Order: sequence, then structure tokens, then C-alpha cells
Amino acid sequence: MLHGKNLIAGDWRTGTGEFRAHDAASGNTIEPSFQEASAKDVADACAAAAEAQRVFGNLPRKDRAAFLRSIADKIDALGSELTERAMSESGLPEARLNGERGRTVGQLRLFAAEVENGAWQALRIDHADPSKTPPKPDLRLRKIPLGPVAVFGASNFPLAFSVAGGDTASALAAGCCVVVKGHPAHPGTSEMVATAIAEAVAECGLPAGVFSLLNGTGYGLGEALVKDPRIAAVGFTGSRAGGLALLEYAAARAVPIPVYAEMSSINPVVLMPARMESAAEELAKAYVGSLSLGAGQFCTNPGIVLAVAGGALERFVAAAADALTQVPAQTMLTSSIHGAYDKGVQTLSQQAGAQLVGEGAEGSGPCGRAVVYTVSAEAFRKNPAFEQEVFGPSSIIVSCASLAELAEILEAMEGQLTTTLHMEPADYPEAAKLLPILEERSGRVIANAWPTGVDVTHAMVHGGPFPATSDGRSTSVGTLAIDRFLRPVSYQDMPEALLPDSLSDESASVLRRIDGTFVV
Amino acid sequence: MLHGKNLIAGDWRTGTGEFRAHDAASGNTIEPSFQEASAKDVADACAAAAEAQRVFGNLPRKDRAAFLRSIADKIDALGSELTERAMSESGLPEARLNGERGRTVGQLRLFAAEVENGAWQALRIDHADPSKTPPKPDLRLRKIPLGPVAVFGASNFPLAFSVAGGDTASALAAGCCVVVKGHPAHPGTSEMVATAIAEAVAECGLPAGVFSLLNGTGYGLGEALVKDPRIAAVGFTGSRAGGLALLEYAAARAVPIPVYAEMSSINPVVLMPARMESAAEELAKAYVGSLSLGAGQFCTNPGIVLAVAGGALERFVAAAADALTQVPAQTMLTSSIHGAYDKGVQTLSQQAGAQLVGEGAEGSGPCGRAVVYTVSAEAFRKNPAFEQEVFGPSSIIVSCASLAELAEILEAMEGQLTTTLHMEPADYPEAAKLLPILEERSGRVIANAWPTGVDVTHAMVHGGPFPATSDGRSTSVGTLAIDRFLRPVSYQDMPEALLPDSLSDESASVLRRIDGTFVV
Repeated sequence: MLHGKNLIAGDWRTGTGEFRAHDAASGNTIEPSFQEASAKDVADACAAAAEAQRVFGNLPRKDRAAFLRSIADKIDALGSELTERAMSESGLPEARLNGERGRTVGQLRLFAAEVENGAWQALRIDHADPSKTPPKPDLRLRKIPLGPVAVFGASNFPLAFSVAGGDTASALAAGCCVVVKGHPAHPGTSEMVATAIAEAVAECGLPAGVFSLLNGTGYGLGEALVKDPRIAAVGFTGSRAGGLALLEYAAARAVPIPVYAEMSSINPVVLMPARMESAAEELAKAYVGSLSLGAGQFCTNPGIVLAVAGGALERFVAAAADALTQVPAQTMLTSSIHGAYDKGVQTLSQQAGAQLVGEGAEGSGPCGRAVVYTVSAEAFRKNPAFEQEVFGPSSIIVSCASLAELAEILEAMEGQLTTTLHMEPADYPEAAKLLPILEERSGRVIANAWPTGVDVTHAMVHGGPFPATSDGRSTSVGTLAIDRFLRPVSYQDMPEALLPDSLSDESASVLRRIDGTFVV
Repeated sequence: MLHGKNLIAGDWRTGTGEFRAHDAASGNTIEPSFQEASAKDVADACAAAAEAQRVFGNLPRKDRAAFLRSIADKIDALGSELTERAMSESGLPEARLNGERGRTVGQLRLFAAEVENGAWQALRIDHADPSKTPPKPDLRLRKIPLGPVAVFGASNFPLAFSVAGGDTASALAAGCCVVVKGHPAHPGTSEMVATAIAEAVAECGLPAGVFSLLNGTGYGLGEALVKDPRIAAVGFTGSRAGGLALLEYAAARAVPIPVYAEMSSINPVVLMPARMESAAEELAKAYVGSLSLGAGQFCTNPGIVLAVAGGALERFVAAAADALTQVPAQTMLTSSIHGAYDKGVQTLSQQAGAQLVGEGAEGSGPCGRAVVYTVSAEAFRKNPAFEQEVFGPSSIIVSCASLAELAEILEAMEGQLTTTLHMEPADYPEAAKLLPILEERSGRVIANAWPTGVDVTHAMVHGGPFPATSDGRSTSVGTLAIDRFLRPVSYQDMPEALLPDSLSDESASVLRRIDGTFVV
């Protein structure tokens, strides 16, 4: 049974006010009421995290891995009750949420294996050389956790990018205690997952400050959390305005801290001429499927498609219009997201040169109606409004006079999470010219697929230049994400008795760089 | 013969005003006059860097390595003329500058080898698995350069942290074009080194925009450089005020960029009781040697020594006082650094509880006089002025009632470049309790040595938590520094014909992670 309290280092506490979640489909409030975390709750959670940090950060790797697996097991044990609550709070369908739960526990277990693997420590040993002038000291490097991390739950992934989502998993894997600010759209889902984490903390005998959950509807809560001097880094997935606000808070601190905000991307997709010639209709169908998946509420939604004008593009547009008629209206995550979507589409429709390609079915209530516009490259280049992300199932097809003009548009674009090329071998010579532009503009370059799938694996990058993220030097999905919460420390001439175990000469089975040579 | 012009992508250009360097020892201006770079010079240098970036960033590794070695060879060829000019401009002695030149070319050659090694690309290959639901795509990750980097020359290392210093070497190694803002204290040295780099650029057939040098005395030049939209990252070594200003400029840009500013550190040194009992006098002598080395003008100068009160500390203080009488006055880098040093020492001397331990010889002109104060832990904790860096040969001995009080002082300290423990085996149990605090506070923890030596190698960390640096996630010395100028990109299902060479299945001899397993 949900109780609506905030979790402060193992204690479920009453806060200072109340709010309720809404059933996404009906818009009705649902039980129970949730407590707004107070300023004292924020301070206490951060203090407990700071106190737990030294123990948790120095836990043997196998113990930290066991903790991550324990969280995954406890989430699994929540069963259908979790799915049902998440369905009501997010409006997402059952199959999607069951898949998302699998992704959530899968990434916790992947990070458990990553912790055990140990290569993330970036171990380097340079042995002393007393014969050098001046004598070379013995130097040994490892990476250690940054300290307590504030994680902001995302609206669009109530499990995989929320309380025990990617940011939490990678921060815990790095050895950082975590204070989550739950997304107010799904507080019941958050409470259930936080209960699972608290059970895992207790079962593993860890200090309770390793994890806290704070709920609230106002901006002040997140601001207080980011400004708390004990917080050492921030993970966020959400709007550009929200991410930029967190960046400002972090930069204004007495001690500025890194903010990893995943914010805004329209994920340009380039349709190359030969591929279009042979498969315009097939591409159009897949495009409409990708842009309307999950009511278009993905960071990697294909918001812009670029192609060269001509018969093939006309066929693509016609087939897209046709496919759109088959797209049902889908419940969006919240009424405010739905409102922003409708407003964004209306703004798009009023831009000079925007021509409607087609629409999906109109729904009632907070349902997003899929829509595609087409615009000439000339009109697109004149008007930055076309480059604004509209979060939901909308997209724009940009018709270019030539591949050269298409390249110029890409060169002028903001940073993106993904860029995509649809091509066949005859397109490769021209695609090779575009590739350097796409690399520079994005964190992932995709060939012949649609960007909405984001595999959780070692070689994934879900990141990219500003404003796709606030810090393009990292990824929020995949095992490389652990690196964003670490920093290097070097030990000089440290006696064996005091060296961290992992830096001893005897320690092995972990990737190390010894006197310049990598040893597995 | 020096001409005093700015180097804009291969062209030596006249600027908008003039300034002259000063002979550090005499304070007299020296010839020739140097040109102040104009706003147009900044814009042109950045535009040329952006234009050269794609070619330079995609250069085969062996070609980039050859370029770094060519720069090193050209600097070697400058011979004693370079040393003489640097001696006059910096006041540093000949042996030190010859050593620094060796360090400078040594680190260029180390980075050349690092470029060839290729592990910095962080290559990861996850092969496709069509049997999975959903099917796993083929994903391949590498790191690519961030883009053009602005490097600020430091006053205290006219060679090793200036025009072709550590930041330039690591940025070029990463594949980033570089625009240097030379330090106005040593424009002649800067011009000679820039000439060497320009020759290497030409010899290697690279686009001239790979490197530019801008000279100037006002703050506006650095501001314009950091705010130029084509600059993608900043490397800086200097004062806290200077670093914080650059951070502000970078954060206020339409596209914020990373700033790696190495700013302020007092490098706490802990003298453990058993070690002090057996070697107080020896430690004191080495301490005075370290704090007065190079007129104390090192980022890692031991500004604070902490020990437990008692007979051993009294012996240490007496021996330090004695050793100080042997320290000659040394010419400081500039008259303004000398002025700031004298003022800083005067401020220190006026703080409640500060007791003079001893002083070095008094010099004439812009000479720094070594000085040590002692203060009780109680007085130290009451007064943040004791924790301010005074750049030069001064230091404070903090006398603590107990190791517990000493630990509390360390816990409350700001981030540092280094922390140090002097100890012997009997001290290890207590040292083990301090070690976690030292790790959290610094980028390098040193045993039984003094912090002023900074080895250029693989396992070095010259970095640390704010305000030691603006970004504790990296190092400015050693091969790991290449990582600060890179970001990851993932390629999904990319046809072999379009894949970067390094990510091909056939490419080998570079460390890669294949399906989760590291392969050397």
C-alpha cells in the first residue's frame, strides 16, 4: 500500500504539503496523497548521503555489484502492481512498461557486471626509476567516486530513467550515494521503486544514506537539492529550460559541480537519393512508426527528415501521409505535456512555408495526434522555429534542392543526440562527405535504422553536443556512463600497506596500464 | 630576430597596439615591442582553427604523432637563444629553464607516443545480435576531438605550461586545433616557440589554422577568445580570479564549453608523529627547500604543514627557522607577482595568532623573500585568511592539539592539487584514517616526498577538486590529459565502407573492448 511519504536515508517521513498524481488517460487525481519534501528533508538526505559516502565509495567491488543486483531483484519482485501504477500515472501501455521494467533491471545487472569488471577504475601503475634525473617516483592512478549525486526522475521513462533508472544505476555503480528528486507525474511508481532500493540497502547492510527519495511539485525542491553543498554532481533528463536552470544553480554554487542534463534534440534523419529511389514507401512507413512510437515521447524521436526534392521524395511524402491515417491518438504522459505538444504543433503550423503532410487520428482527452509537416530548405533556413523540439509525435520533412544544400543545413544545426543516414551502396560516396558533419553534431550516428531504439550496452552513446546535453563528454546510457561520476587520483610512493587494494602490484584480473602497457 | 607580431594561421600580423616585456631582474623594458592582437585577429584565428579542425581531427594517428615530434625537434633547435630570452623575461635561472625545455619537448614526444598507442580512442565494438528481442544493432564507439581549444599561457612555466606546453600538447594530441593566448610576461619566448610550431605545421603539410598565437596585455583578449563560438574548450593555468572569470564567460555563451582551469592550491603536508620523532630536522630542511624552490612559484608549493604540537614539532620549527636563514632572495616572475606576494605575506603576518618562524635573505628589486609562519589549529580554524594561497616562497605551520584535530582541519579544507603524508611504519594505522580525507580533497596523495615535483607520465594526476581546478574530473599533466579534449561518438550499423578505420573489425594493435572484453 502506498503511503505518500519521502524516504530520507531509510526513514519514511511526512513533509510539508500534499499533492496527488493524475491518471494520465482520464485526468482524474488518484490516491493516495503525496508529501512535498521540505527544505529540512533535502538537507537531511544530503547530509546522510555525505556521511554514507566514504563507506559506500570504498565498498569492495563485489559488494557494490551485489547491491545493484539486489535492487534489480527487489524491483522484479514488485511484479504487476508496479506496472499497473505506472500505467495509470504515465498513460503508457502495459507492454511498453513491462519492457521498460526489463530494461531497468537489465541495466542494473549490466552495471553490476561492470563494477566487477573494474576497468572503469582506469588503473595505471608507473614504477619508480631511481636511476633517472630527477629520480622517477612510483605513481599509481585510480578513479574514485565524485561524491553524492542528485538524480532527477524523467517523465517519459517512469522506470528506466527515473528512481532506479540509468542515472541512479551508473552513479551507484561509480560508488556515489544518490538523492533522487522523483518526477511529480509518477510519485506512486517512484515510491514503489524507492521501497525496493531501501530494502536492498538494508539487505546489503549499507548505511541508509546511500539512497533517498524526495517528492515535490515545485521548482524550489530541485533548486535546493542542486545547491546543497554536499551534492557533487547532477543527473537530469528533461526539458531544455529545466536543464538550463540546473546548470545555472550549479555554476552559481561556491563550489560549482558537473551537471549532466539531457535536454533537447530533434535527431535529423537524412534520406539519401539512391535509397529513396528504391524504398521511399518502405522508409515512409518506418518513419511514421518511429515518430509516433510511445506518442513520440522519446528523446530520440525523428523530429526532422532531410531529403533532396524530386519524385522519390514526393512518393515518400505521399506514403507518410497515408501511413499517418493509420496512427491512433495516444494518451500523453501528462496534461501539461499534452498542452505543450498541441501548442508546439500549432506554432509549427503557423510558420511560413509549413505544409501539412498528414495527421493521425484525433483523440479525446490528453491524447497526442501524430502530425507531419513539410517545408522547403529555404524556408527552414530562414526560421529557427523549425529547429525547436516539439516533444510528441510530430516531425518535419525538409525538402532540399541538392545534397550540398542539405549539408549546409546540417552544418548549421545545433548539437543532437542522434543523426541518421538511410542509404545503399550507391549512396556511400556522398554519405562519406556528410559523415564528418554528422559526427560533429551528434553523439550517435545511425545507418539504416530509426533513432528511437537506444540499446543499453558498452558501445552506446546517448549524449551529444549542447543543447542535446549540457556536457557532450559523456553518455547517460550504456556502461560508459559510469565514467561521468568518477575522477582520477594519483598515489605517489605510497607504501603497500596503505595502497588501495586495486593498485597493489599483486592485484590482477582487472585491466591495468603498467609502465605504459595495457595488461588484461 | 624577434618581430613582435601575432601568428594568425601561418601569417605574422601587425595588431592594434604595442607592449613590451620587462627584464624580470632589473624591471627594465626589453626589445622589441609586441603587437596587441585585435578582435579581428581573434576571430580570424578561431575561424581558421574551425576550418582546419576537420582535416586535423581526422589525421591518421601516425601523422599527428609526427607533427608533435616535429614541434619538439624545432623547439630543441632553438637552442640557447630560447633559454636566454626566457631567463630575461621570467627571471628563472638557466638550469631550471633548460630543465623546463627538456620537460616541454619530452611531453610533446610522450604525447606523440600516446597518439600512436591509440587507447585514448576508447574503442568499443558490440557486434549485432539479430536473435535478441528487439534485435541488437552493431554499435561501435570511439572518442573524437571536441574542436578548437583556447590555451592560456602560464606565467610560471614559460615553456612547459605556455605556448607549446602541456595544454597545447594534449589538445593537439587529441586532434584539436589550438589558439594560444600568450602570457604577456614572456612574449619573446612565446614568439620563438610559436615560430617552431608554425614551421612544424608547414613541414607536416597541415592547414595553417591548426595553430595560432595571440599576444596582449588586457583582459578583453582572453574574454573574446573564450566567447568565440568556434572555440570548443579552454585550458588555463593561473590565478583563481582569472580562472573564475573564464568560467563565467564560458557558462554565459549560447553554447557553454568546458573550461579546464588550474587555479589555486596550498597543498597540505601532514607530518605524522613517529616520522617527526625520528626526523624533524631532516624534514624541516627538505620543507624549506621545497617551499623556496623557484621562488615558491609552483602550483604545488607546500603552503601548509600540519603536525601535532610537542617537542618534535618544536625541533621542526627551530630547524626550519635555521634553514630559512640560508635561503637567498630570488627574482620573481614579474613585478606584479612580486607585489602581490609581498602584500599576501603582509596580510598573513597581521592575522591573529600568526607567529613568525623565520625568513630568508632580503633582496633588492623584485625578489621574493622566503618566510614561514606558525599558527595554532584553533586560530587557523577561526580564520579563512590562512587558507588563501600566497603565490611565492611562503608557508604556514599549523600546530594541532591532536591527530583528531588535524583530521578535522583537513576535512574542512578546500580542494587541493596535492596532499602529502610524511610517515614511517609506526604511523601507518593513523595515516590510514587520514588517507580517505586526503583522497577526497586532492588529485594526488604523496608519501614521504615534497609536492613540488610533478612527473610527466601515465599515472600522474595534476588536478583536483575545486578550487584547485575548475573541473576535478581530469588532469593537466600526464598522458591522461588527452581525455579532457575528447568526447565519445557511437556508430550504429555503419557499413564497413564508411566506418572510421580504427573501428573496423580488422583494425588491431590498439586496445579495444569487443563485446565487453578488453583485447590488447
